[in-house]
Amino acid sequence: MPRKDIEVFFNPRTVAVVGASRKPGKVGYELLRNLKMFYKGKIYPVNPKANEILGLKAYPTIKDVPDEVDVAVIVVPAPAVPSVAKDAGEAGVKGLIVISGGFKEVGPEGAELERKLVEVVRKYGMRLIGPNCVGVYVPKTGMNTLFLPPERQGFPGHGVIAFISQSGAFGSAVLDWAAMRGVGISKFVSYGNKADVDDDDLLEYLREDPDTRVITMYIEGVEDGRAFMKALRETTPIKPVAVLKSGRTAAGARAASSHTGALAGQDHVYSAAFKQTGVIRTYGMEELFDVGMALGMQPPAPGDRAAILTVGGGSGVMATDALSDLGLKVPRLSDKTVEKLRKVLLPIASPYNPVDVTGSATDEHLIESVEILMRSGEVDVIIWLPYYIVPGISPELNKRFIERVRKVNRELEHPIPILGVATGGEYTSRYSREAEEMGIPMYLSPERAAKAAKALVDYGKWLRLIGTFDEYVEKFRKQVGY
Amino acid sequence: MPRKDIEVFFNPRTVAVVGASRKPGKVGYELLRNLKMFYKGKIYPVNPKANEILGLKAYPTIKDVPDEVDVAVIVVPAPAVPSVAKDAGEAGVKGLIVISGGFKEVGPEGAELERKLVEVVRKYGMRLIGPNCVGVYVPKTGMNTLFLPPERQGFPGHGVIAFISQSGAFGSAVLDWAAMRGVGISKFVSYGNKADVDDDDLLEYLREDPDTRVITMYIEGVEDGRAFMKALRETTPIKPVAVLKSGRTAAGARAASSHTGALAGQDHVYSAAFKQTGVIRTYGMEELFDVGMALGMQPPAPGDRAAILTVGGGSGVMATDALSDLGLKVPRLSDKTVEKLRKVLLPIASPYNPVDVTGSATDEHLIESVEILMRSGEVDVIIWLPYYIVPGISPELNKRFIERVRKVNRELEHPIPILGVATGGEYTSRYSREAEEMGIPMYLSPERAAKAAKALVDYGKWLRLIGTFDEYVEKFRKQVGY
Repeated sequence: MPRKDIEVFFNPRTVAVVGASRKPGKVGYELLRNLKMFYKGKIYPVNPKANEILGLKAYPTIKDVPDEVDVAVIVVPAPAVPSVAKDAGEAGVKGLIVISGGFKEVGPEGAELERKLVEVVRKYGMRLIGPNCVGVYVPKTGMNTLFLPPERQGFPGHGVIAFISQSGAFGSAVLDWAAMRGVGISKFVSYGNKADVDDDDLLEYLREDPDTRVITMYIEGVEDGRAFMKALRETTPIKPVAVLKSGRTAAGARAASSHTGALAGQDHVYSAAFKQTGVIRTYGMEELFDVGMALGMQPPAPGDRAAILTVGGGSGVMATDALSDLGLKVPRLSDKTVEKLRKVLLPIASPYNPVDVTGSATDEHLIESVEILMRSGEVDVIIWLPYYIVPGISPELNKRFIERVRKVNRELEHPIPILGVATGGEYTSRYSREAEEMGIPMYLSPERAAKAAKALVDYGKWLRLIGTFDEYVEKFRKQVGY
Repeated sequence: MPRKDIEVFFNPRTVAVVGASRKPGKVGYELLRNLKMFYKGKIYPVNPKANEILGLKAYPTIKDVPDEVDVAVIVVPAPAVPSVAKDAGEAGVKGLIVISGGFKEVGPEGAELERKLVEVVRKYGMRLIGPNCVGVYVPKTGMNTLFLPPERQGFPGHGVIAFISQSGAFGSAVLDWAAMRGVGISKFVSYGNKADVDDDDLLEYLREDPDTRVITMYIEGVEDGRAFMKALRETTPIKPVAVLKSGRTAAGARAASSHTGALAGQDHVYSAAFKQTGVIRTYGMEELFDVGMALGMQPPAPGDRAAILTVGGGSGVMATDALSDLGLKVPRLSDKTVEKLRKVLLPIASPYNPVDVTGSATDEHLIESVEILMRSGEVDVIIWLPYYIVPGISPELNKRFIERVRKVNRELEHPIPILGVATGGEYTSRYSREAEEMGIPMYLSPERAAKAAKALVDYGKWLRLIGTFDEYVEKFRKQVGY
């Protein structure tokens, strides 16, 4: 079971909002409004000048709340925060989320204020997320401390990806994008100055969290490299971790330092650390989630041989290039496998690899081919390019194809991961989304699918290196039911 | 003026569809249905067994059509094509688009049939697109020979990007994607086996085409490298050309050869050819259009110094990394410029570069900053990250910001190109699309904007190298009105 002192932030029974406001547009109003809209537990606004806010009874101080408060979300100005924290400690609050800025990030005075805050937190045995952050969002429990209104900011549904962001604004923008893209999130945390709860605590929590299958992180720098590496090393045998680390270049490091004061550090040190701990490194927001979806939805690849199963020849060529660029093999299939494919394909189809079923293909060509590829013993990961728009492909394709994939995977010693590519517009997106709901991540371009495939290959290699491949796959099979 | 023998394909007065069918699902039916839906000129179905198809009077042969036919679209089986072409020649048809496959791509017999077809085409002084292709799509005239139904395939609106695709299926998928993405197209051509009209002809035509500002191409291989290079060399001084060349890797070249029989060739030869002719090379479909939009909507950069103007610190750091990765400079601004920025920004803002106006910014902070950056003489291209979702940014931002950019650009010796980044969901997409309609291309991530910025820098460098920078910019200014 994951640690309870962190769990409280994601699944509190009661939440107080200290600094709740009656004025629309104010952080203390918008945050309360979001929380009320999403959260299922009890909410207590704290404001000495109000009796009621948004239909909720308000209290002058947190000590006046006639209930045990699990989490206090604090949005009062920085100088008042330590004393509010003290009140919270005395009232038995377990966790503080301090949204307010004005601490370490603004200079020595702020740093002193932050030191005081942490002192109070420690004294009362509380935990603290922030200060200077947007806090947490958990679709499953509705815990939501983000303050941008849902008219501007979208909130994704429940899913298997945890996302930790050192940047609040970027974190919000990514959640918004994920909602539109249909990417589900298990837990989101923006921890700002991470004065108490930091990367290590979150990794320790999330690796035991049954709702999280993959951990994604945006970071600009970490302070205690040794502790971070230890946390990563203890996490990656259990769950994949994908990281987007910015401030990689000299100019980028300078920019990071004026942003969060982060010591972006020598990039080669981070690269080495990620390599030594089996972390998948990514280089952009889309790539982070492309990779996150692959790792969350598909098993790691047992080797580095890729097969391409395509309705469009051109995309097959591009997929081959993209996989080769990343060092994956796209081997010509054996004569035996080619013969088997020939028997089920059209005469104009190309059965080597890419297996190009052509635009005249029907559902059957794809379904029979994928089984032959999966059972061939020559393939460790498959990229599937269905072209939903061609006339012979029916609206039933996803259901039938994915059922077959699951059936065959149940029978194989090692399940074979499959990723899809669907380039197109409205119609294609609809079916692409459907395939994802059935468990196959779909990408807009072969290049993006190739990077995701590479992550499955790399994570598989890592698990084999440290000897936990079979154990991981066994657990994964139970989770996805094959 | 562009060559008339090619122009006829894009803007015919009359079109015959030979092999038009009454059966829904058949290519000859679906193609006619699309054409009828889009095309504004006269359409003559040709089918010996029908009197009327889709409400249009049908004729037994093309010679029976009581009108001059500009273009004949041919969908009859391959063996019948040469004799249909002969009829067309005798009837005075100017252009043939042969959709049917079964020619060179299927072996020696098909190659012989293709040779015969070309012989007929030459004899009658016609031009030919295809065979084995999906033909053309021109939003402005409605000329549309694609056969996928609009329920499955989207069609983009009019815009400044021409797109030539060696792959029909990929071409269709990209059009579909472009429609959803809101990317406008001037002309789309899929030329299949390019037995007559080839890359060189199309480049020659498009470089004079007043509707096209940038030419994008997907190719797997060209047969006459010398002629292709000549055509590129004559085009890039006038218009930018961006190419996605697949079959780059050994495995990819093998795949290309079984797809279109293309000799993908040694990739370093293509790389050198593109470099020597000022072609912008891209490595994926999204990148091709990201770059195409930048080159079509923004002037080339007068140098390689980039400035970043951001509401979100994290994205600013990522943009800095991405630009640095590509070899662009992100210089710290001079003290003089920093002072000017300080005067208009919030105290918590960071005025160096990235210029981070912070999430507390208002429209004014962005508008005043961009003018200072543009006038500084220290910046050749600007990446703008507005974060439409933050509270201080108003729905009027785009209008006011872009008006200011245009005004300042009118007054500068060299206009400064601007690209935007907007990561987010529905609300963000709406404003992002609005900015594009006003002339600033917007990207989902800093990495994609950086690649587009690099294309503007590279094309600017090329134009300065060959000495046509000022001439090009002068013409561009007239087109966009600044």
